[in-house]
Amino acid sequence: MQQYLDSKKEDFSAFVSNVQQHICNSLEAVDGAHNFRIEDWEREGFGHGSTRIISEGNVIEKGGVNVSVVKSTLPEVLQKKLNVEESKFFVTGVSLVIHPKNPFVPTVHANYRYFELYDHQTGELKDQWFGGGADLTPYYLFTEDARHFHQTHKDVCDQFDPGFYPQFKKECDEYFYNHHRNESRGIGGLFFDYMRPNEQHSAHQLFQFAEKAGYAFTDAYLPILTKRKDHEWNEEHRFWQEVRRGRYVEFNLIHDRGTLFGLKTKGRIESILMSLPPKVRWVYNHQPETGSPEAKLVEHLKPIDWINY
Amino acid sequence: MQQYLDSKKEDFSAFVSNVQQHICNSLEAVDGAHNFRIEDWEREGFGHGSTRIISEGNVIEKGGVNVSVVKSTLPEVLQKKLNVEESKFFVTGVSLVIHPKNPFVPTVHANYRYFELYDHQTGELKDQWFGGGADLTPYYLFTEDARHFHQTHKDVCDQFDPGFYPQFKKECDEYFYNHHRNESRGIGGLFFDYMRPNEQHSAHQLFQFAEKAGYAFTDAYLPILTKRKDHEWNEEHRFWQEVRRGRYVEFNLIHDRGTLFGLKTKGRIESILMSLPPKVRWVYNHQPETGSPEAKLVEHLKPIDWINY
Repeated sequence: MQQYLDSKKEDFSAFVSNVQQHICNSLEAVDGAHNFRIEDWEREGFGHGSTRIISEGNVIEKGGVNVSVVKSTLPEVLQKKLNVEESKFFVTGVSLVIHPKNPFVPTVHANYRYFELYDHQTGELKDQWFGGGADLTPYYLFTEDARHFHQTHKDVCDQFDPGFYPQFKKECDEYFYNHHRNESRGIGGLFFDYMRPNEQHSAHQLFQFAEKAGYAFTDAYLPILTKRKDHEWNEEHRFWQEVRRGRYVEFNLIHDRGTLFGLKTKGRIESILMSLPPKVRWVYNHQPETGSPEAKLVEHLKPIDWINY
Repeated sequence: MQQYLDSKKEDFSAFVSNVQQHICNSLEAVDGAHNFRIEDWEREGFGHGSTRIISEGNVIEKGGVNVSVVKSTLPEVLQKKLNVEESKFFVTGVSLVIHPKNPFVPTVHANYRYFELYDHQTGELKDQWFGGGADLTPYYLFTEDARHFHQTHKDVCDQFDPGFYPQFKKECDEYFYNHHRNESRGIGGLFFDYMRPNEQHSAHQLFQFAEKAGYAFTDAYLPILTKRKDHEWNEEHRFWQEVRRGRYVEFNLIHDRGTLFGLKTKGRIESILMSLPPKVRWVYNHQPETGSPEAKLVEHLKPIDWINY
């Protein structure tokens, strides 16, 4: 694999900053009430980042679009997981979660990241990979929204490799799954990880793919946000949204590798946990009524070919 | 160790049912509005239990007092953890979490359990241990409440072994710790696990200790509940309570071995997750004002010798 290594540290760092700005600008334009609050942070010997948070906006109840750049030593538990010896690593990424106020607007998550691993002694680049994706978590199901979200991401994938979309869609379905509930977190999207340059795709092509996918976020989500943000809702819809947000918390704290990685590497807690929804409920054994829109959503929380649905 | 083995299956099963009834009766008497809803369940080849839930009472916003009896085969991941081969196990326990409505009343948790491990081939009893404890999670600190809760449990401990309280208090401080936040979940109490009979304490004595500790729950908690339940509160107190409940969720889903055990052994999800609070908030980087009662609580979320405080 060594032969394909070609550092994309500078390119990827520039991309995450630029796409963060682009996404924040686009969301601010739709929200209208508040701008993102910018909190730049730096921790010596660890890294730096820019956390951008919006709270109690017109449209967005809570949202974060974060960038971080971390250069550190791999903790032991991750050495084991990655099957490497003591190593230095570099990782940069953009990570966002948007929790809209209106229960008819889905929550959305996207993350694009780039990882380099170096020999502890020589500092030589030993390994590199790309990871990322985007997925949608509706509280009420609109088939056309699910289709649009998937189609937008498929279009980006198809520019690079016809095998990308089917593979990454499947990986997303597998990854964002609440095993303890036997249900998907939402209606999926893309997920890829440990994507290393090889004879099919150079590091530069993989970078370009991540970049295009990152910029496609606004094409995939903003039309849905705009279309549903003024949908009428009442307290019962809100109740359901808060119950379902509980499942989101369960996924992030029990299953999510990104959250785990952040906690294990002693990342900045408030930036990591900005993904958690603002108001959440746990109601013992709550079951939606048969035939209700709430039950319809739950019936669709499984792998579905949304493009042809 | 084999020489001290003496099955307490029947005794402990009777105890958990009886103490469940005693605790539910006592709590119902204070709440006044609702009784616990009883949901008995049975799953073939797994076990049975009785889940008792109270919701939106006068005093208790959400609470559960559950008993379960599980007889199953140890999942691989737990074989590794316990360093044993394929084994059958038996576990029974009572587990409770009470989330009161009034932010001046602490949340409380208690759990007493008994475990047996058998040879997979012969069915012979190979190992047995007791575990349990009780701990308090206030939103506002009353030193006298913390002292009372600890003193009540110390009194039980001291009847059996003067070393119990210092040891189990320390283990509680270590266990109920949100490492990712560098703060204790609450003000502690007792925690013990893998407590096996030995030359100091027979299985029967350990059973009696668990039993007395279990019945002491009402002595430890009910006076606090009764004293604080009518404390005046406003929306700011409630806000703080909901934020702090978020830490409770974080502990239970990220760190709690009991929750993990339940999920890994494919336990009944709604019974396991009844511990999660009814209404919760996550507010980005919320910090209480310096000198406020909220800040005072946070300053005390560390190991403290409450008996002599």
